[in-house]
Amino acid sequence: MPMIDITYPEGAISSEQRETLANDLTAALLRAERAPDTEFFRSITWAIVHEQPAGTMLAAGRPVQAPVVRVEATTPEGALSDRRRAEFVEAATKAISETFGIPESETLTRVWVTHREIAEGSWGAGGQIIHFAQLREMAAAARAEEGAAV
Amino acid sequence: MPMIDITYPEGAISSEQRETLANDLTAALLRAERAPDTEFFRSITWAIVHEQPAGTMLAAGRPVQAPVVRVEATTPEGALSDRRRAEFVEAATKAISETFGIPESETLTRVWVTHREIAEGSWGAGGQIIHFAQLREMAAAARAEEGAAV
Amino acid sequence: MPMIDITYPEGAISSEQRETLANDLTAALLRAERAPDTEFFRSITWAIVHEQPAGTMLAAGRPVQAPVVRVEATTPEGALSDRRRAEFVEAATKAISETFGIPESETLTRVWVTHREIAEGSWGAGGQIIHFAQLREMAAAARAEEGAAV
Repeated sequence: MPMIDITYPEGAISSEQRETLANDLTAALLRAERAPDTEFFRSITWAIVHEQPAGTMLAAGRPVQAPVVRVEATTPEGALSDRRRAEFVEAATKAISETFGIPESETLTRVWVTHREIAEGSWGAGGQIIHFAQLREMAAAARAEEGAAV
Repeated sequence: MPMIDITYPEGAISSEQRETLANDLTAALLRAERAPDTEFFRSITWAIVHEQPAGTMLAAGRPVQAPVVRVEATTPEGALSDRRRAEFVEAATKAISETFGIPESETLTRVWVTHREIAEGSWGAGGQIIHFAQLREMAAAARAEEGAAV
Repeated sequence: MPMIDITYPEGAISSEQRETLANDLTAALLRAERAPDTEFFRSITWAIVHEQPAGTMLAAGRPVQAPVVRVEATTPEGALSDRRRAEFVEAATKAISETFGIPESETLTRVWVTHREIAEGSWGAGGQIIHFAQLREMAAAARAEEGAAV
Protein backbone atom coordinates (compact mmCIF):
# COMPACT_ATOMS: atom_id res chain seq x y z
CA MET A 1 0.00 0.00 0.00
CA PRO A 2 2.92 2.30 -0.67
CA MET A 3 2.86 5.74 -2.25
CA ILE A 4 5.61 7.48 -4.19
CA ASP A 5 5.57 11.27 -4.50
CA ILE A 6 7.83 12.54 -7.28
CA THR A 7 8.62 16.26 -7.58
CA TYR A 8 10.56 17.98 -10.38
CA PRO A 9 10.39 21.06 -12.60
CA GLU A 10 7.58 21.05 -15.17
CA GLY A 11 8.75 20.32 -18.70
CA ALA A 12 11.91 18.49 -17.62
CA ILE A 13 10.62 15.21 -19.07
CA SER A 14 7.83 14.17 -21.43
CA SER A 15 4.59 12.52 -20.33
CA GLU A 16 5.86 9.21 -21.79
CA GLN A 17 9.01 9.47 -19.69
CA ARG A 18 6.89 10.33 -16.67
CA GLU A 19 4.90 7.16 -17.08
CA THR A 20 7.99 5.00 -17.58
CA LEU A 21 9.61 6.54 -14.52
CA ALA A 22 6.52 6.00 -12.36
CA ASN A 23 6.43 2.41 -13.55
CA ASP A 24 10.14 1.88 -12.78
CA LEU A 25 9.84 3.39 -9.32
CA THR A 26 6.75 1.28 -8.61
CA ALA A 27 8.63 -1.88 -9.57
CA ALA A 28 11.68 -0.80 -7.52
CA LEU A 29 9.61 -0.18 -4.41
CA LEU A 30 7.70 -3.47 -4.66
CA ARG A 31 11.04 -5.23 -5.13
CA ALA A 32 12.54 -3.49 -2.10
CA GLU A 33 9.48 -4.42 -0.04
CA ARG A 34 9.66 -8.02 -1.28
CA ALA A 35 5.97 -7.64 -2.13
CA PRO A 36 4.54 -10.01 -4.72
CA ASP A 37 4.66 -8.30 -8.12
CA THR A 38 1.03 -9.15 -8.87
CA GLU A 39 -1.56 -6.90 -10.47
CA PHE A 40 -3.25 -6.41 -7.09
CA PHE A 41 -0.09 -5.37 -5.27
CA ARG A 42 0.92 -3.10 -8.13
CA SER A 43 -2.55 -1.53 -8.15
CA ILE A 44 -2.20 -0.57 -4.49
CA THR A 45 1.06 1.24 -5.22
CA TRP A 46 0.35 4.85 -6.11
CA ALA A 47 2.65 7.35 -7.74
CA ILE A 48 1.76 11.03 -7.46
CA VAL A 49 3.73 13.35 -9.67
CA HIS A 50 4.24 17.02 -8.81
CA GLU A 51 5.41 18.99 -11.83
CA GLN A 52 6.53 22.34 -10.45
CA PRO A 53 6.03 25.53 -12.49
CA ALA A 54 9.19 27.45 -13.44
CA GLY A 55 10.80 29.23 -10.52
CA THR A 56 9.15 27.17 -7.76
CA MET A 57 12.04 24.81 -7.05
CA LEU A 58 14.98 26.62 -5.53
CA ALA A 59 18.36 25.60 -4.19
CA ALA A 60 20.52 28.01 -2.22
CA GLY A 61 17.53 30.37 -2.40
CA ARG A 62 17.69 30.66 -6.20
CA PRO A 63 15.56 28.93 -8.85
CA VAL A 64 17.43 25.82 -10.01
CA GLN A 65 19.08 26.08 -13.42
CA ALA A 66 19.09 22.33 -14.05
CA PRO A 67 16.36 19.95 -12.83
CA VAL A 68 16.52 18.60 -9.30
CA VAL A 69 14.32 15.66 -8.36
CA ARG A 70 12.75 14.72 -5.04
CA VAL A 71 11.22 11.32 -4.44
CA GLU A 72 9.45 10.40 -1.25
CA ALA A 73 8.37 6.82 -0.73
CA THR A 74 5.70 6.35 1.93
CA THR A 75 5.10 2.87 3.32
CA PRO A 76 3.45 1.32 6.33
CA GLU A 77 5.74 1.22 9.36
CA GLY A 78 8.04 -1.79 9.21
CA ALA A 79 7.76 -2.44 5.47
CA LEU A 80 11.40 -1.61 4.70
CA SER A 81 14.55 -2.57 6.58
CA ASP A 82 17.67 -0.38 6.37
CA ARG A 83 19.10 -2.64 3.70
CA ARG A 84 15.96 -2.66 1.57
CA ARG A 85 15.59 1.09 1.93
CA ALA A 86 19.14 1.48 0.60
CA GLU A 87 18.24 -0.81 -2.32
CA PHE A 88 15.29 1.41 -3.17
CA VAL A 89 17.37 4.59 -2.95
CA GLU A 90 19.94 3.11 -5.32
CA ALA A 91 17.41 1.82 -7.85
CA ALA A 92 15.29 4.97 -7.76
CA THR A 93 18.31 7.24 -8.21
CA LYS A 94 19.48 5.19 -11.18
CA ALA A 95 16.06 5.39 -12.86
CA ILE A 96 15.86 9.13 -12.22
CA SER A 97 19.34 10.01 -13.41
CA GLU A 98 18.77 8.04 -16.62
CA THR A 99 15.37 9.62 -17.24
CA PHE A 100 16.50 13.19 -16.57
CA GLY A 101 20.02 12.79 -17.97
CA ILE A 102 21.66 13.72 -14.66
CA PRO A 103 25.36 12.73 -14.52
CA GLU A 104 26.21 10.46 -11.59
CA SER A 105 28.59 13.09 -10.23
CA GLU A 106 25.66 15.49 -9.75
CA THR A 107 23.16 13.15 -8.12
CA LEU A 108 24.35 14.06 -4.60
CA THR A 109 23.02 17.58 -5.00
CA ARG A 110 20.25 16.92 -7.54
CA VAL A 111 18.51 13.62 -6.68
CA TRP A 112 17.13 13.06 -3.19
CA VAL A 113 15.14 10.00 -2.21
CA THR A 114 13.58 9.89 1.24
CA HIS A 115 11.46 7.32 2.99
CA ARG A 116 8.58 8.08 5.31
CA GLU A 117 6.63 5.62 7.41
CA ILE A 118 2.96 5.83 8.28
CA ALA A 119 2.64 4.73 11.88
CA GLU A 120 0.86 1.42 12.56
CA GLY A 121 -2.84 2.18 12.96
CA SER A 122 -2.70 5.38 10.90
CA TRP A 123 -3.39 4.06 7.38
CA GLY A 124 -6.99 3.81 6.34
CA ALA A 125 -8.31 2.30 3.13
CA GLY A 126 -11.84 1.26 2.25
CA GLY A 127 -13.09 3.18 5.27
CA GLN A 128 -11.12 1.29 7.90
CA ILE A 129 -7.66 1.07 9.39
CA ILE A 130 -5.45 -1.37 7.50
CA HIS A 131 -2.86 -3.02 9.71
CA PHE A 132 0.52 -4.02 8.35
CA ALA A 133 -0.09 -7.63 9.43
CA GLN A 134 -3.11 -7.74 7.09
CA LEU A 135 -0.96 -6.65 4.16
CA ARG A 136 1.59 -9.31 5.04
CA GLU A 137 -1.12 -11.96 5.10
CA MET A 138 -2.41 -10.82 1.71
CA ALA A 139 1.13 -10.98 0.36
CA ALA A 140 1.67 -14.48 1.77
CA ALA A 141 -1.62 -15.63 0.24
CA ALA A 142 -0.63 -14.14 -3.13
CA ARG A 143 2.70 -15.95 -2.99
CA ALA A 144 1.05 -19.25 -2.05
CA GLU A 145 -1.38 -18.90 -4.95
CA GLU A 146 1.47 -18.10 -7.29
CA GLY A 147 3.29 -21.23 -6.05
CA ALA A 148 0.16 -23.33 -6.48
CA ALA A 149 -0.28 -22.03 -10.02
CA VAL A 150 3.20 -23.18 -11.05
CA MET B 1 -4.79 23.25 14.69
CA PRO B 2 -5.19 20.38 12.25
CA MET B 3 -4.60 20.37 8.52
CA ILE B 4 -6.20 18.17 5.89
CA ASP B 5 -4.45 17.65 2.56
CA ILE B 6 -6.77 16.27 -0.13
CA THR B 7 -5.36 15.01 -3.43
CA TYR B 8 -7.34 13.84 -6.48
CA PRO B 9 -7.39 14.23 -10.26
CA GLU B 10 -8.30 17.68 -11.53
CA GLY B 11 -11.83 17.91 -12.90
CA ALA B 12 -13.14 14.94 -10.92
CA ILE B 13 -15.46 17.18 -8.91
CA SER B 14 -16.77 20.74 -9.22
CA SER B 15 -15.58 23.66 -7.10
CA GLU B 16 -18.89 23.55 -5.20
CA GLN B 17 -18.33 19.88 -4.39
CA ARG B 18 -14.77 20.68 -3.37
CA GLU B 19 -15.99 23.21 -0.85
CA THR B 20 -18.67 20.89 0.54
CA LEU B 21 -16.11 18.09 0.85
CA ALA B 22 -13.58 20.33 2.64
CA ASN B 23 -16.33 21.41 4.98
CA ASP B 24 -17.41 17.82 5.68
CA LEU B 25 -13.84 16.68 6.33
CA THR B 26 -13.25 19.67 8.61
CA ALA B 27 -16.33 18.78 10.64
CA ALA B 28 -15.34 15.08 10.73
CA LEU B 29 -11.85 15.86 11.99
CA LEU B 30 -13.04 18.28 14.69
CA ARG B 31 -15.58 15.64 15.78
CA ALA B 32 -12.91 12.93 15.91
CA GLU B 33 -10.66 15.23 17.93
CA ARG B 34 -13.56 16.09 20.28
CA ALA B 35 -12.64 19.73 19.65
CA PRO B 36 -15.33 22.34 20.29
CA ASP B 37 -17.08 23.07 16.97
CA THR B 38 -16.74 26.84 17.43
CA GLU B 39 -15.82 29.38 14.79
CA PHE B 40 -12.34 29.74 16.31
CA PHE B 41 -11.58 26.02 16.29
CA ARG B 42 -12.97 25.66 12.78
CA SER B 43 -10.87 28.61 11.61
CA ILE B 44 -7.69 26.89 12.79
CA THR B 45 -8.54 23.81 10.74
CA TRP B 46 -7.10 24.15 7.27
CA ALA B 47 -7.89 22.12 4.18
CA ILE B 48 -5.44 22.22 1.31
CA VAL B 49 -6.65 20.73 -1.94
CA HIS B 50 -4.26 19.36 -4.55
CA GLU B 51 -6.00 18.94 -7.91
CA GLN B 52 -3.61 16.87 -9.99
CA PRO B 53 -3.34 17.46 -13.76
CA ALA B 54 -4.25 14.53 -16.04
CA GLY B 55 -1.68 11.75 -15.99
CA THR B 56 -0.01 12.70 -12.69
CA MET B 57 -1.78 10.19 -10.45
CA LEU B 58 -0.77 6.65 -11.24
CA ALA B 59 -1.55 3.25 -9.80
CA ALA B 60 0.42 0.17 -10.85
CA GLY B 61 2.64 2.60 -12.77
CA ARG B 62 -0.20 3.67 -15.09
CA PRO B 63 -2.35 6.82 -15.01
CA VAL B 64 -5.53 6.02 -13.14
CA GLN B 65 -8.64 5.59 -15.28
CA ALA B 66 -11.06 6.45 -12.47
CA PRO B 67 -10.36 8.97 -9.70
CA VAL B 68 -8.41 7.86 -6.66
CA VAL B 69 -8.39 10.10 -3.59
CA ARG B 70 -5.75 10.60 -0.92
CA VAL B 71 -6.49 12.41 2.31
CA GLU B 72 -3.85 13.14 4.90
CA ALA B 73 -4.93 14.57 8.21
CA THR B 74 -2.14 16.23 10.18
CA THR B 75 -2.65 16.91 13.86
CA PRO B 76 -0.53 17.71 16.89
CA GLU B 77 0.88 14.58 18.52
CA GLY B 78 -1.66 13.00 20.84
CA ALA B 79 -4.76 14.63 19.36
CA LEU B 80 -6.28 11.38 18.10
CA SER B 81 -6.52 8.00 19.80
CA ASP B 82 -6.71 4.81 17.72
CA ARG B 83 -10.47 4.76 18.07
CA ARG B 84 -10.93 8.39 17.07
CA ARG B 85 -8.57 7.98 14.14
CA ALA B 86 -10.72 5.06 12.94
CA GLU B 87 -13.81 7.26 13.30
CA PHE B 88 -12.21 9.91 11.10
CA VAL B 89 -11.15 7.36 8.49
CA GLU B 90 -14.70 6.02 8.31
CA ALA B 91 -16.38 9.43 8.11
CA ALA B 92 -13.87 10.84 5.62
CA THR B 93 -14.17 7.80 3.35
CA LYS B 94 -17.96 8.05 3.39
CA ALA B 95 -17.85 11.76 2.45
CA ILE B 96 -15.33 11.08 -0.31
CA SER B 97 -17.11 8.11 -1.84
CA GLU B 98 -20.37 10.05 -1.94
CA THR B 99 -18.75 13.14 -3.44
CA PHE B 100 -16.82 11.25 -6.11
CA GLY B 101 -19.40 8.53 -6.69
CA ILE B 102 -17.00 5.74 -5.73
CA PRO B 103 -18.80 2.45 -4.98
CA GLU B 104 -18.03 1.08 -1.52
CA SER B 105 -16.52 -2.06 -3.06
CA GLU B 106 -13.82 0.07 -4.69
CA THR B 107 -12.84 2.25 -1.75
CA LEU B 108 -10.11 -0.19 -0.63
CA THR B 109 -8.07 0.58 -3.73
CA ARG B 110 -9.33 4.11 -4.45
CA VAL B 111 -9.74 6.00 -1.15
CA TRP B 112 -6.83 6.21 1.28
CA VAL B 113 -6.93 8.24 4.45
CA THR B 114 -3.76 8.55 6.50
CA HIS B 115 -2.96 10.37 9.70
CA ARG B 116 0.29 12.13 10.46
CA GLU B 117 1.34 13.66 13.74
CA ILE B 118 3.49 16.73 14.20
CA ALA B 119 5.80 16.00 17.11
CA GLU B 120 5.27 17.99 20.31
CA GLY B 121 7.36 21.15 20.06
CA SER B 122 7.40 21.16 16.23
CA TRP B 123 4.27 23.19 15.46
CA GLY B 124 4.69 26.93 15.25
CA ALA B 125 1.93 29.50 14.81
CA GLY B 126 2.05 33.23 15.35
CA GLY B 127 5.83 33.04 15.47
CA GLN B 128 6.13 30.67 18.38
CA ILE B 129 5.84 27.00 19.24
CA ILE B 130 2.30 26.00 20.15
CA HIS B 131 2.15 23.16 22.62
CA PHE B 132 -0.67 20.65 22.57
CA ALA B 133 -1.49 21.48 26.21
CA GLN B 134 -2.21 25.07 25.16
CA LEU B 135 -4.70 23.89 22.55
CA ARG B 136 -6.37 21.68 25.13
CA GLU B 137 -6.70 24.61 27.52
CA MET B 138 -8.22 26.75 24.78
CA ALA B 139 -10.68 23.95 24.01
CA ALA B 140 -11.63 23.57 27.69
CA ALA B 141 -12.17 27.33 27.95
CA ALA B 142 -14.35 27.29 24.82
CA ARG B 143 -16.43 24.44 26.26
CA ALA B 144 -16.82 26.23 29.62
CA GLU B 145 -17.98 29.38 27.85
CA GLU B 146 -20.43 27.38 25.76
CA GLY B 147 -21.74 25.76 28.93
CA ALA B 148 -22.06 29.15 30.60
CA ALA B 149 -23.99 30.50 27.62
CA VAL B 150 -26.66 27.77 27.87
CA MET C 1 20.36 18.75 3.44
CA PRO C 2 17.18 20.43 4.54
CA MET C 3 14.07 21.13 2.48
CA ILE C 4 11.51 23.88 2.95
CA ASP C 5 8.03 23.47 1.49
CA ILE C 6 6.13 26.75 1.27
CA THR C 7 2.40 26.78 0.47
CA TYR C 8 0.19 29.84 -0.14
CA PRO C 9 -2.50 31.08 -2.52
CA GLU C 10 -1.32 31.76 -6.08
CA GLY C 11 -0.93 35.44 -6.86
CA ALA C 12 -0.47 36.50 -3.25
CA ILE C 13 3.11 37.60 -3.92
CA SER C 14 5.23 38.31 -7.00
CA SER C 15 7.92 35.99 -8.33
CA GLU C 16 10.56 38.44 -7.06
CA GLN C 17 9.07 38.28 -3.57
CA ARG C 18 8.92 34.50 -3.84
CA GLU C 19 12.63 34.35 -4.53
CA THR C 20 13.49 36.75 -1.71
CA LEU C 21 11.33 34.76 0.68
CA ALA C 22 12.91 31.45 -0.33
CA ASN C 23 16.31 33.02 0.16
CA ASP C 24 15.38 34.39 3.60
CA LEU C 25 13.94 31.07 4.77
CA THR C 26 17.03 29.25 3.48
CA ALA C 27 19.29 31.57 5.47
CA ALA C 28 17.06 31.26 8.56
CA LEU C 29 17.11 27.46 8.45
CA LEU C 30 20.89 27.24 7.96
CA ARG C 31 21.30 29.68 10.85
CA ALA C 32 18.99 27.63 13.09
CA GLU C 33 20.91 24.48 12.16
CA ARG C 34 24.24 26.22 12.85
CA ALA C 35 25.30 24.95 9.44
CA PRO C 36 28.15 26.80 7.72
CA ASP C 37 26.66 29.40 5.37
CA THR C 38 28.84 28.28 2.45
CA GLU C 39 27.80 27.89 -1.17
CA PHE C 40 27.83 24.09 -0.78
CA PHE C 41 25.61 24.04 2.29
CA ARG C 42 23.25 26.58 0.75
CA SER C 43 23.09 24.52 -2.46
CA ILE C 44 21.91 21.47 -0.52
CA THR C 45 19.05 23.46 0.99
CA TRP C 46 16.02 23.23 -1.25
CA ALA C 47 12.90 25.35 -1.21
CA ILE C 48 9.82 24.01 -2.97
CA VAL C 49 7.01 26.49 -3.45
CA HIS C 50 3.40 25.40 -3.83
CA GLU C 51 1.24 28.19 -5.23
CA GLN C 52 -2.33 27.04 -4.74
CA PRO C 53 -5.01 27.95 -7.30
CA ALA C 54 -7.94 30.07 -6.05
CA GLY C 55 -10.30 28.15 -3.82
CA THR C 56 -7.90 25.33 -2.87
CA MET C 57 -6.83 26.64 0.52
CA LEU C 58 -9.66 26.59 3.00
CA ALA C 59 -10.04 27.41 6.67
CA ALA C 60 -13.18 26.47 8.58
CA GLY C 61 -14.22 24.65 5.41
CA ARG C 62 -14.38 27.85 3.36
CA PRO C 63 -11.87 29.29 0.86
CA VAL C 64 -9.65 31.75 2.69
CA GLN C 65 -10.36 35.42 2.00
CA ALA C 66 -6.86 36.59 2.93
CA PRO C 67 -3.68 34.57 2.30
CA VAL C 68 -2.66 31.91 4.81
CA VAL C 69 0.86 30.49 4.61
CA ARG C 70 2.17 27.06 5.54
CA VAL C 71 5.87 26.35 5.83
CA GLU C 72 7.25 22.91 6.51
CA ALA C 73 10.94 22.54 7.19
CA THR C 74 12.27 19.01 6.74
CA THR C 75 15.66 18.13 8.20
CA PRO C 76 17.59 15.03 9.11
CA GLU C 77 16.69 13.70 12.55
CA GLY C 78 18.62 15.54 15.23
CA ALA C 79 19.48 18.63 13.20
CA LEU C 80 17.38 21.02 15.30
CA SER C 81 17.02 21.24 19.07
CA ASP C 82 13.83 22.67 20.60
CA ARG C 83 15.49 26.04 21.00
CA ARG C 84 16.77 26.18 17.44
CA ARG C 85 13.42 25.06 16.10
CA ALA C 86 11.80 27.96 17.96
CA GLU C 87 14.37 30.30 16.45
CA PHE C 88 13.47 29.11 12.97
CA VAL C 89 9.73 29.45 13.62
CA GLU C 90 10.23 33.02 14.79
CA ALA C 91 12.49 34.06 11.91
CA ALA C 92 10.36 32.32 9.27
CA THR C 93 7.15 33.89 10.58
CA LYS C 94 8.75 37.34 10.56
CA ALA C 95 9.91 36.91 6.95
CA ILE C 96 6.48 35.64 5.88
CA SER C 97 4.43 38.32 7.61
CA GLU C 98 6.60 41.03 6.07
CA THR C 99 6.44 39.50 2.60
CA PHE C 100 2.68 38.93 2.63
CA GLY C 101 1.80 41.98 4.70
CA ILE C 102 0.18 39.93 7.45
CA PRO C 103 -0.27 41.91 10.70
CA GLU C 104 1.37 40.28 13.70
CA SER C 105 -2.01 39.96 15.41
CA GLU C 106 -3.17 37.61 12.63
CA THR C 107 -0.14 35.33 12.37
CA LEU C 108 -1.56 32.86 14.91
CA THR C 109 -4.31 31.90 12.48
CA ARG C 110 -2.56 32.69 9.20
CA VAL C 111 1.11 31.62 9.44
CA TRP C 112 1.99 28.07 10.47
CA VAL C 113 5.53 26.75 10.50
CA THR C 114 6.07 23.08 11.22
CA HIS C 115 9.17 20.93 11.42
CA ARG C 116 9.45 17.39 10.21
CA GLU C 117 12.37 15.04 10.69
CA ILE C 118 13.51 12.37 8.28
CA ALA C 119 14.51 9.37 10.38
CA GLU C 120 18.19 8.46 10.48
CA GLY C 121 18.87 6.06 7.61
CA SER C 122 15.93 7.31 5.52
CA TRP C 123 17.56 10.11 3.51
CA GLY C 124 19.19 9.14 0.26
CA ALA C 125 21.22 11.41 -2.00
CA GLY C 126 23.54 10.48 -4.82
CA GLY C 127 22.10 6.97 -4.78
CA GLN C 128 23.01 6.13 -1.21
CA ILE C 129 21.86 6.73 2.34
CA ILE C 130 23.36 9.88 3.82
CA HIS C 131 23.83 9.67 7.57
CA PHE C 132 23.53 12.73 9.74
CA ALA C 133 27.06 12.15 11.07
CA GLN C 134 28.39 12.53 7.52
CA LEU C 135 26.70 15.92 7.19
CA ARG C 136 28.15 16.98 10.52
CA GLU C 137 31.63 15.98 9.40
CA MET C 138 31.22 17.96 6.18
CA ALA C 139 30.09 20.96 8.21
CA ALA C 140 33.05 20.67 10.59
CA ALA C 141 35.44 20.44 7.62
CA ALA C 142 33.84 23.52 6.05
CA ARG C 143 34.22 25.44 9.29
CA ALA C 144 37.88 24.37 9.68
CA GLU C 145 38.58 25.49 6.13
CA GLU C 146 36.87 28.81 6.77
CA GLY C 147 38.98 29.24 9.91
CA ALA C 148 42.17 28.40 7.99
CA ALA C 149 41.28 30.92 5.30
CA VAL C 150 41.05 33.75 7.80
